[in-house]
Amino acid sequence: MESPAQVRQQIRAGRWRGPTAGLALGYAQANLVVLPQAYAYDFLVFCQRNPKPCPVLEVTDPGDPVPRHAAPDADLRTDLPRYRVYRDGELVEEVDHLRGLWREDLVAFLLGCSFTFEAALQRAGIPVRHLQCGCNVPMYVTNRPCRAAGPFAGPLVVSMRPVPEDQLPRVFQICSRYPLAHGAPVHVGDPQRLGIRDLDRPDYGDPVPVRDGEVPVFWACGVTPQAVAQRARIPLMITHSPGHMFVTDLRDEDLAWG
Amino acid sequence: MESPAQVRQQIRAGRWRGPTAGLALGYAQANLVVLPQAYAYDFLVFCQRNPKPCPVLEVTDPGDPVPRHAAPDADLRTDLPRYRVYRDGELVEEVDHLRGLWREDLVAFLLGCSFTFEAALQRAGIPVRHLQCGCNVPMYVTNRPCRAAGPFAGPLVVSMRPVPEDQLPRVFQICSRYPLAHGAPVHVGDPQRLGIRDLDRPDYGDPVPVRDGEVPVFWACGVTPQAVAQRARIPLMITHSPGHMFVTDLRDEDLAWG
Repeated sequence: MESPAQVRQQIRAGRWRGPTAGLALGYAQANLVVLPQAYAYDFLVFCQRNPKPCPVLEVTDPGDPVPRHAAPDADLRTDLPRYRVYRDGELVEEVDHLRGLWREDLVAFLLGCSFTFEAALQRAGIPVRHLQCGCNVPMYVTNRPCRAAGPFAGPLVVSMRPVPEDQLPRVFQICSRYPLAHGAPVHVGDPQRLGIRDLDRPDYGDPVPVRDGEVPVFWACGVTPQAVAQRARIPLMITHSPGHMFVTDLRDEDLAWG
Repeated sequence: MESPAQVRQQIRAGRWRGPTAGLALGYAQANLVVLPQAYAYDFLVFCQRNPKPCPVLEVTDPGDPVPRHAAPDADLRTDLPRYRVYRDGELVEEVDHLRGLWREDLVAFLLGCSFTFEAALQRAGIPVRHLQCGCNVPMYVTNRPCRAAGPFAGPLVVSMRPVPEDQLPRVFQICSRYPLAHGAPVHVGDPQRLGIRDLDRPDYGDPVPVRDGEVPVFWACGVTPQAVAQRARIPLMITHSPGHMFVTDLRDEDLAWG
């Protein structure tokens, strides 16, 4: 098994450009959001006001590409396999590194990721449907507004995983332990209660089947802050590409409390 | 039993100027730190980097004295029984309200308070020494540095409560549930390990006896961010007076996860 530092080294050297699921098992992976400093305060307040979709693991100093808490020997400009660049809310390119894009006024936010609780569910013998299916988790825009902060406002985005009814208590128990990885589900059952019309048509990711005896369970999703920053038409935002996360030195257990 | 709104109404009307311990039992009380907007980002990053001493319950919009999440009908200018005003790091006055001091560029931070876990300990039948003694909790400056952010830097301040050895597991269990009220202790046993020379001479608060069969247990303390802001000699900082907290509408359980 490779260490987080080894994984990042492979990525930095250009030898890994794929998704990071399953790499450096036992270590937390993180969503990346990079914004100009002028927007960093409002974004951080947005995260404070919406901790379930936006659990903050780290905020870097302006211009500093090193996440000194989560991985002090890493470089956020080179250590993710793929990045997305948004200008004025529009996706303009996908890139392999940020060497030419980095600026002294950029602040990086690392946000906890669902991989952490999915690994915990699997350790407990609870299967995760989209992993079984080999596809992306289905994600939906809901009718629940986030609490706004400055220009950042918009609806909560949730991910959905079908759970057998008799495993619901265990799922709540396990996920509640990881508030920095979205924590306990935000809703169980009828998707209409979240304003979701058709589970087969997710707004992001891929649909997965909900089988007899299973209920759809919804978690606050890390796509929320990106979606909100896009709506705000921030001049420049850089994120990881979906599934191409930052591998931290934090153990999954470091995202537990308290 | 009075509701949080009733308590705040009494305070606002000038009919209560005392400490708030024991008022509106079951509801979370909060530390208040008010800073000019120019310092709010670095302070919020400091809190993110030091969540045990600085668990953020709410950040208000600049100039808005209403904590819209924690108590939407409250006014932070009038609803605490006593405030302290610091200029350039020096305590310059204690006041009953902030009517003449409030400015459009002020941001208020509400931080979780140890009253929440002390109430939980008492509900579990675990006595809290300084409450038995009718004095303030002893607090100590440690040799552990906080993670700095901008001008905010300095040592962790801890509070100490003696715990019978056989109740230690239960204390950890209970306090771990409230990460937004400082969570689990940061240290158990030898005070020297934290650089504390003499338990009988706390840096803040009052000494309490540690009896046979008891060990000193140390929690990250909400005095930390105030001490750090004082050291940074911020031009203006307003806080609650010790023990004179803000009574929120959040239930103690709302400070649990996750």
